[in-house]
Amino acid sequence: MADSNVKVLGTWASPFVMRVRIALHLKSVGYEYVEENLLEAKSELLLKSNPVHKKVPVLIHGDKPVCESLIIVQYIDEVWTSAPSILPSDPYDRAESRFWAAYVNDKFFPALRRVLISTEEARKVAMAEILEGVVLLEEAFKKLSKGKAFFGGDNLGYVDLAVGSLLAWIKVIEKFTETEALSEAKTPSLAAWADCFSSHAAVKDVFPDVDKLVDFGMKLRAKFSKAATAAAATTTN
Amino acid sequence: MADSNVKVLGTWASPFVMRVRIALHLKSVGYEYVEENLLEAKSELLLKSNPVHKKVPVLIHGDKPVCESLIIVQYIDEVWTSAPSILPSDPYDRAESRFWAAYVNDKFFPALRRVLISTEEARKVAMAEILEGVVLLEEAFKKLSKGKAFFGGDNLGYVDLAVGSLLAWIKVIEKFTETEALSEAKTPSLAAWADCFSSHAAVKDVFPDVDKLVDFGMKLRAKFSKAATAAAATTTN
Repeated sequence: MADSNVKVLGTWASPFVMRVRIALHLKSVGYEYVEENLLEAKSELLLKSNPVHKKVPVLIHGDKPVCESLIIVQYIDEVWTSAPSILPSDPYDRAESRFWAAYVNDKFFPALRRVLISTEEARKVAMAEILEGVVLLEEAFKKLSKGKAFFGGDNLGYVDLAVGSLLAWIKVIEKFTETEALSEAKTPSLAAWADCFSSHAAVKDVFPDVDKLVDFGMKLRAKFSKAATAAAATTTN
Repeated sequence: MADSNVKVLGTWASPFVMRVRIALHLKSVGYEYVEENLLEAKSELLLKSNPVHKKVPVLIHGDKPVCESLIIVQYIDEVWTSAPSILPSDPYDRAESRFWAAYVNDKFFPALRRVLISTEEARKVAMAEILEGVVLLEEAFKKLSKGKAFFGGDNLGYVDLAVGSLLAWIKVIEKFTETEALSEAKTPSLAAWADCFSSHAAVKDVFPDVDKLVDFGMKLRAKFSKAATAAAATTTN
């Protein structure tokens, strides 16, 4: 049920947008979803709502915009307090959740992006970082989940949203590189969690189609490779 | 008064460490400060406490390590609740504070770092980003402070710590580039705030000596320039 008071500016392929939508689903908050076409032109509403970064997602609550996916998720958790909390209540557990979400944003996602759009050599380095990263996340899962199904325990939590939103993109780079990143042999807990996450009621409707994402990834790669070739030509001419 | 239950692993020149120390001062929490020498060798305690990033600051509370400066500041705010809050209480105000702190970490600080250690051309681009950045922060200050002395209003808040910890380094790059970044003409609110911030009781004892920081900055620049030259030699030989 759409609540005209809440609007999300997003794009279907963005893992960051997915985090915000899952958080709203978990809290049973209805919202209007506005699809932006970032490969073409950004809307006036997006440019006005996020003038600093000009990026999705933006949550508009009433007339107030909130930007940056992890900040939006915390905002949602603090505004709609009746549903189960997304962040744990204990300060140390909260700090650990924030640590792993920041790790995903600052280290894991940039490596994933480089696997997608870098040149061959940089791609190998980035893929090695991904393979190290999933081992770290496997350990983090064991610690945070305390034997339950999710990083957040019985319910989806902050780290589930941070990592889970990248699962479809992990599948894309597995196809691109013909390398298994998550596997029952090397990361059994994370592999089992991935199945639970992607079939969760709050997730399954916004989990992107991987084949469609592969096509989109190839377009992105072509766009960046063209840009890099043009930049190299400018430098050498 | 040192509280043996709280330890901070830090290094004097790090703005990120400064945030943590100021937060503890604001909350009147005694702590043991352990200086790390990152140019030489990292301590076993640091490597054990922050195995993922191996960086300062680390706050060790009891036997539990907390890493990443902004996460530590939020942890401190959530654990020691008797003193004034560092983050505002309203969810939207909290989101805005988190937005500007993230901006400082993700955009402003990396530009500042590039001014310090990059080659001439990249340095000019980075300095232009700094000059745009201070204008954005001037606007943010006007909005968040609501006419009071600090981003946090009457008290130092989250954004004060995020931005203020970089003030001494801003002075360093002003000297390096012979360019004024903060000025009464262009950023009058921020210039006045900078004076209030650096003379605040919770700050003044940990605000680094700028001349000493200039020396340190020159060592860093020499180290990175040597590394870059070595890398270039490896590539071309």
